[in-house]
Amino acid sequence: MTTTRKMHLVAYLRTNSTASYAGGWRHPSAPLADVWSPERYQSLARLLETARFDAGFFADNLALPDLYKGRIDDYIGRGGQASLLDPMIALPIMAAATSHLGLGATLSTTFNDPYHLARSLGSLDLISGGRAAWNVVTSTMDAEARNFGMAAMPDKGSRYERADDVLEACTKLWDSWEPGALVMDRESGVFADPSRIHAANHRGPHVATAGPLGIPRSPQGRPVLMQAGASDRGRAFAARWAELVFASPATKEAGIGFRADLHERLRAAGRGPDSCKVLTSMSIVLGETEQIARDRAAYLEALVDPELVLASNSSLMGVDLHETLKQPAPAEVGNQGVQGTLDRMTATAAARKTSFAETVRRPRDLFVGTPGQIADTMEDWFTSGACDGFVLPPTVYPGTFEDAARLLVPELQKRGLFRRDYAGRTLRDNLRNPG
Amino acid sequence: MTTTRKMHLVAYLRTNSTASYAGGWRHPSAPLADVWSPERYQSLARLLETARFDAGFFADNLALPDLYKGRIDDYIGRGGQASLLDPMIALPIMAAATSHLGLGATLSTTFNDPYHLARSLGSLDLISGGRAAWNVVTSTMDAEARNFGMAAMPDKGSRYERADDVLEACTKLWDSWEPGALVMDRESGVFADPSRIHAANHRGPHVATAGPLGIPRSPQGRPVLMQAGASDRGRAFAARWAELVFASPATKEAGIGFRADLHERLRAAGRGPDSCKVLTSMSIVLGETEQIARDRAAYLEALVDPELVLASNSSLMGVDLHETLKQPAPAEVGNQGVQGTLDRMTATAAARKTSFAETVRRPRDLFVGTPGQIADTMEDWFTSGACDGFVLPPTVYPGTFEDAARLLVPELQKRGLFRRDYAGRTLRDNLRNPG
Repeated sequence: MTTTRKMHLVAYLRTNSTASYAGGWRHPSAPLADVWSPERYQSLARLLETARFDAGFFADNLALPDLYKGRIDDYIGRGGQASLLDPMIALPIMAAATSHLGLGATLSTTFNDPYHLARSLGSLDLISGGRAAWNVVTSTMDAEARNFGMAAMPDKGSRYERADDVLEACTKLWDSWEPGALVMDRESGVFADPSRIHAANHRGPHVATAGPLGIPRSPQGRPVLMQAGASDRGRAFAARWAELVFASPATKEAGIGFRADLHERLRAAGRGPDSCKVLTSMSIVLGETEQIARDRAAYLEALVDPELVLASNSSLMGVDLHETLKQPAPAEVGNQGVQGTLDRMTATAAARKTSFAETVRRPRDLFVGTPGQIADTMEDWFTSGACDGFVLPPTVYPGTFEDAARLLVPELQKRGLFRRDYAGRTLRDNLRNPG
Repeated sequence: MTTTRKMHLVAYLRTNSTASYAGGWRHPSAPLADVWSPERYQSLARLLETARFDAGFFADNLALPDLYKGRIDDYIGRGGQASLLDPMIALPIMAAATSHLGLGATLSTTFNDPYHLARSLGSLDLISGGRAAWNVVTSTMDAEARNFGMAAMPDKGSRYERADDVLEACTKLWDSWEPGALVMDRESGVFADPSRIHAANHRGPHVATAGPLGIPRSPQGRPVLMQAGASDRGRAFAARWAELVFASPATKEAGIGFRADLHERLRAAGRGPDSCKVLTSMSIVLGETEQIARDRAAYLEALVDPELVLASNSSLMGVDLHETLKQPAPAEVGNQGVQGTLDRMTATAAARKTSFAETVRRPRDLFVGTPGQIADTMEDWFTSGACDGFVLPPTVYPGTFEDAARLLVPELQKRGLFRRDYAGRTLRDNLRNPG
């Protein structure tokens, strides 16, 4: 079977021992102390590039989650996947070790100034030759707000209003150096052409910056913008800005609905549906045989600590599940929490015909099977319009990515569903032309 | 001649073609386009480590200087040494390429939040195995303030008050993880010991942060703190916080006076004079013979554009020298500008018996000679108490550092003035025990 449409693959990463699967850090093949060593990030980046992934991106938060029982103890104590290193320290090392892999950072518009954001991301784009991506978040935890001198998170409306403002400011800063502004002519002594370097003069409701940006225009002009908002406001933001959207639908049907809704919003914003790709998160466990895969998944599930799952889901949903489990599931997250996680939990409970309380105690559903079986599922989601590709978190690090490189990617390539080589130099090139 | 006291050497760096000498970028052996390539920072770091430098640090600003004639044109157009890449993107790459070299970042307390500062610098310390340094600045240009939504720089008093506040907050964040808080025991499922992770609970006049910091304690506990304030307020700040102070005295006698004053202030703060090293900035041109060195210096001076010198000195002194040159030299900088630069200019004019107006048109004085001659000067300054070592900016990049590694450092080592190998693992170890 062949097809001309090709899927995208992005690795979900954390500066922690694994990335998202509760208990994965206890797996004997997952290294622990290398989170702070450059070699980890160099070999990770090379592995993903060998497998022809579009990009890897680091999820991030700016506080240790403390919602469960109102303290940090269960989350960090039991191995929650907090960032244990600033991802902006790991990404330049990955850039230096690779030449095609896209490199994504999660940076908050609520707790960063546009000048810093534009300079830092522009610099990552420069040093990587045009491979930077920005996962734009507005942050979701009061603990993060308290680390920046606020009592609690601003409400979602004002967070997104600021996010729009920050993106407008960053865009003006990224555009402040025209192509060709850098001259560097030793003979004439002309280093730059100041007539091609312009002020940004942004003055919005939340942020202001004069510019110009201190660094030259980067290869991509601006980083690829990624986003994962599932709420109505989040989708509106994505339709305006995002080039890559992450979704975590509980079912294929929910994925089809989400993507169709986004396409509708893109059209309304005057953008083509191809201008923004939807990637679905899929936690996989591969095996050479179905039995090996099932054994591996069972082993992994035996490492799971239910208290850690509750602590993690408390932070993701913005409620203390220790206190609220006896109440009915809320329909929307409050000022804290991620709407997409709540939606998925509710839908998963309905699909499984189990209670909400039971669902939030369980780790994420795993897709378990041979490369052929996993590829079947991916092909089904992809061809039925549920997504344009997948975000793969490691259930075991780095084993999941090694298995993907050796077993899954060759199977996808054989089916004509995934590139054999990069078609472009920059991340945006590779998103527009998947090869 | 031998001595037991040994000097320290630190490289002054910029993410630009050279670092500080006007016109150095026009030198045919200075690469131009590699400012944005990882290889530049890898080979630079290895070169400095081969030469046994204590550290390299990047000067930085958060705007294109625009004081001269009230526009950016002459500074950036003629090749002023602005940061053309965020140094925090270059430093992790340098960390990955080396094992002993200290790595310094210039970060502003006025335009950064303590949580970001503590996490970013702590992460650099973790990834480098204890080699991070922070050159603490309060920033000096209104153009920087305008990039962060302010009309102009806050006055120096409130900037230093905020700097103290930010340092207190960062210190609490760095101390929030006790040694041993990270357990990572797969069997028991204990990842961290939350009883050893504490809130920071900092609430100061300018900044507040709850903590704990999201990342574990770093090898040095906190980065080495560097500072360059020459004003009375700057010296008071250094006496409280700094472990390394940069000075740019116009004469050896001025250096002796500065260091004695700092030692007096350190004593008053209950600190020993050895707890803070004073490094003097020295722009050198080496040659195998005196004639070669003189020829090289003459060639370099012929590349200098006087308009660029005026533009650079305008920014450093916080005045538009195009407008103010006919007035007498001010005694103190205003809200903008660096007091140390103004002091040096005034003293240089007096020592040369030339006018202030003439002095600010000339590039920095160069120390020109054979390795023996330069080492004589360095030894003289060092042994007479003017400094504990030197900050070397490249007059030509990377030639100055290559010459230092091949010609000067061996001469200093022969005299017993400089280490032949690193005595410690961390930067702080190497500052306390120079080998």
